[in-house]
Amino acid sequence: MTGPYPSGSTATGAGDAAVFRDLTGIVLDALAQGTADRGGPLPSGGPDEVAARTRAAIGAVLPQHGVGPEAALREVVGAAARGAADPAHPHCVAHLHTPALAVAVAADLAASALNPSMDSWDQAPAAAVVEGEVTAALARLVLPRAAAPDALITSGGTEANLLALLFARERAARAGTSPLRVVCGANAHHSVHRAAWVLGLPEPRTLPCTRGRLTPDVVADALREHRGPTLVVATAGTTDEGLIDPLPQLAEVTAAHGAELHVDAAYGGPLCFSDALAPRLAGLDAAVSVTFDLHKLGWQPLAAGALVLADAAAVRHLSHRADYLNAEDDTEAGLPDLLGRSLRTSRRPDALKVAVTMRALGRSGIGALVEHCVRTAEGFADAVDAHPAVRRRPGRIDISTVLFRPTAADDLSDEEGDALVAAVRRRLLHEGRAVLGRAVAEDADGLRRLWLKATLLHPAASVDDLGELLDLVAAVAAVRAPAPAPTNNGDAP
Amino acid sequence: MTGPYPSGSTATGAGDAAVFRDLTGIVLDALAQGTADRGGPLPSGGPDEVAARTRAAIGAVLPQHGVGPEAALREVVGAAARGAADPAHPHCVAHLHTPALAVAVAADLAASALNPSMDSWDQAPAAAVVEGEVTAALARLVLPRAAAPDALITSGGTEANLLALLFARERAARAGTSPLRVVCGANAHHSVHRAAWVLGLPEPRTLPCTRGRLTPDVVADALREHRGPTLVVATAGTTDEGLIDPLPQLAEVTAAHGAELHVDAAYGGPLCFSDALAPRLAGLDAAVSVTFDLHKLGWQPLAAGALVLADAAAVRHLSHRADYLNAEDDTEAGLPDLLGRSLRTSRRPDALKVAVTMRALGRSGIGALVEHCVRTAEGFADAVDAHPAVRRRPGRIDISTVLFRPTAADDLSDEEGDALVAAVRRRLLHEGRAVLGRAVAEDADGLRRLWLKATLLHPAASVDDLGELLDLVAAVAAVRAPAPAPTNNGDAP
Repeated sequence: MTGPYPSGSTATGAGDAAVFRDLTGIVLDALAQGTADRGGPLPSGGPDEVAARTRAAIGAVLPQHGVGPEAALREVVGAAARGAADPAHPHCVAHLHTPALAVAVAADLAASALNPSMDSWDQAPAAAVVEGEVTAALARLVLPRAAAPDALITSGGTEANLLALLFARERAARAGTSPLRVVCGANAHHSVHRAAWVLGLPEPRTLPCTRGRLTPDVVADALREHRGPTLVVATAGTTDEGLIDPLPQLAEVTAAHGAELHVDAAYGGPLCFSDALAPRLAGLDAAVSVTFDLHKLGWQPLAAGALVLADAAAVRHLSHRADYLNAEDDTEAGLPDLLGRSLRTSRRPDALKVAVTMRALGRSGIGALVEHCVRTAEGFADAVDAHPAVRRRPGRIDISTVLFRPTAADDLSDEEGDALVAAVRRRLLHEGRAVLGRAVAEDADGLRRLWLKATLLHPAASVDDLGELLDLVAAVAAVRAPAPAPTNNGDAP
Repeated sequence: MTGPYPSGSTATGAGDAAVFRDLTGIVLDALAQGTADRGGPLPSGGPDEVAARTRAAIGAVLPQHGVGPEAALREVVGAAARGAADPAHPHCVAHLHTPALAVAVAADLAASALNPSMDSWDQAPAAAVVEGEVTAALARLVLPRAAAPDALITSGGTEANLLALLFARERAARAGTSPLRVVCGANAHHSVHRAAWVLGLPEPRTLPCTRGRLTPDVVADALREHRGPTLVVATAGTTDEGLIDPLPQLAEVTAAHGAELHVDAAYGGPLCFSDALAPRLAGLDAAVSVTFDLHKLGWQPLAAGALVLADAAAVRHLSHRADYLNAEDDTEAGLPDLLGRSLRTSRRPDALKVAVTMRALGRSGIGALVEHCVRTAEGFADAVDAHPAVRRRPGRIDISTVLFRPTAADDLSDEEGDALVAAVRRRLLHEGRAVLGRAVAEDADGLRRLWLKATLLHPAASVDDLGELLDLVAAVAAVRAPAPAPTNNGDAP
């Protein structure tokens, strides 16, 4: 070891506290310096240049002899910060990629330092209690009318959707009838399809949507065609457009046909923290399971997902014996059995930061931040409408996603217009000036076009902070738009 | 909000650095205080008392109005620290539950603060480069002779084993022959069975082991009985005994029958950092995939798993298009496609702390820590052998796991002896004095008995630190041992 610190210093060992404190100080400095050096929402230069700069800054990642903790932290954390797409910058709005709250990140430091593993009591005596309190609170929050709800912590919406399909598969298997069939809209998250593939289920029946939403009539038709156990997957907060499917009507038609309803509320679920916004999730109560996520509209660092279950008994499908973790006599003697709470074995205590954040802000405080995001999106939509060089995808904003495109794209053929939208997005990325998303969605004329997407998740950014984005888009579009296409181009019969 | 901090402060936003620094300071104080208050390897009093104390300390986890970040951090982090089973204490040795290095935990703080998500380039421009460097280095380290190795970051051994089975399932499906059959030893980790269940595969064929190891002859017999695509799962570092299956012989017999070999080296894999110990993993080169994990013998906070692949082409099975993350025209325009690197979508940059640790310590520094653990285990085994009131499970120590039991248990019937061993473990847990594991393993007479398990992962603890454990075990066993059973008890015909 060449560094000044003993290489075996732990985060919590006797006598190690001073070393640990010094090293976290180096990280805080490197983060602040790297962010200042970057000076924008993401590094400029595009993928190849960022890769070259990052590789040069970090050097060999596994040298024969180490450079010591201080130097390694400065180099690698500094490079990561300089090269970050930082959702705490108001112009970083592409994805459900949240700026993490300082309080949540600070709490997460304790998770790493204490390093409890959630698969047995003797690795996580208190952390298991914290997780239990969090899952109970989330279950009551999301499904307040369920008699015995429960929630499982997941690595995100993808794992939650997988668990939902797994539980439905097992219910179908125990019923002994035909295998499970999954029905979802074209607006469902890709993880629904991926989960079916992983689980060895048939490809989900994917139904067309109308203006981005799954409608009850097409679901009814599909359910009439198919007998046997069926899970209908609806979405509260679609990835592309941030829309909420008509849950009450979908719940009704699903129940009428004896099918089950799963709602992927990875994005929209946290509306239930706000009394004003919770009514937008009406119908959620009819779901057997709900995908919920606090690393989106909940400002947690990754990962903070959950699957909320209307009936706690569903968890039994994960019940599982491994003598080293939950021997029968240990369970009988009162040692809690944690293994059946996840598909993972070793598992980070992601509930810790959630507990701290919920207790710090309270339901009202989190609700206020959610309302801020929704209001900011509405204000941004107005700004789009008022701007001469961009136009908005028509329709209601259900949560905090706004689709828009430069009007210069409308002067081109459909194909060239879409290409312009994509090029504007990539140009802004390349120049390190803005991180905007993209989505194909139905326009007022019923045609599907490519749009720029702003997903507004920042708990403090204002509409003014975002206004500049529209000028950026307009300016880049004006430069990159080719000469208008000849008349009738793209209108071939 | 009642707290002194603005509720919307982010970890990296402009002007937020001072708040974030203050909050991490509170966490460091709460960790140090909580650890001092606990004063031992785990809290005393047993599950119910720990739960009651923890609940009282943290209060309502989702109050209507928050208590503010400072108070919430003090309360919840303090409770988590007081109630932790702390692997940085030398008497916490039950599981593959590692004391996290200060440098790794400090680096992990940057992961949470920057919060890159590994599913698209525009959420993780530099973090994706860091992950690429780490996976390339791990692939070369673990499978140095493979022509085009690759590695995927996972949430641990469980996800790595699942991916290994998934890739094998897909190879079998594309070959169009019969479905995949998995063959493993009784010593295989439970996640192999769980993965088969999740993936809709038949229950693995589970073969008996000899003194804790899978032997080539039983594998050969099983492969002769079964035609069609087969994945043999061997283990380098079994959970119960820390043993390494005879990999060269298993590789030979597997190849001879046209089957494939997967090696679960979640525990033993890091021996390859040490030139002295790497030969114990001879035969690994024959594997199509290797489960590898740095949150065990690598001192990373959870999670730091990987699946190392002999042929990078296997990753294509995860290839997956979701326009918002990897639209075809974006990929063609040079934006790296990250989505096909995991089953997860949103994903924390777990590679960041690994990069910092590997660069800080180097291969030699990590190797030296691994050697320290192996040497400590050997020294501890000698201490067991020298102690009058405990005896060791006979046989070689392959890595750093030592099985032993109080000799008082040998004076009882088999059943009562095992019950004593289990009771000693639970008593030490209840009193907050030691966290020992348990394992059923073959004794010298061929009978399977229950043992106490010490898994020695501490990068700095000495044999002397551990010696006290044996006196603790002996003292508790002496108190709890019932009067010797009458002669012939348990010997009924």
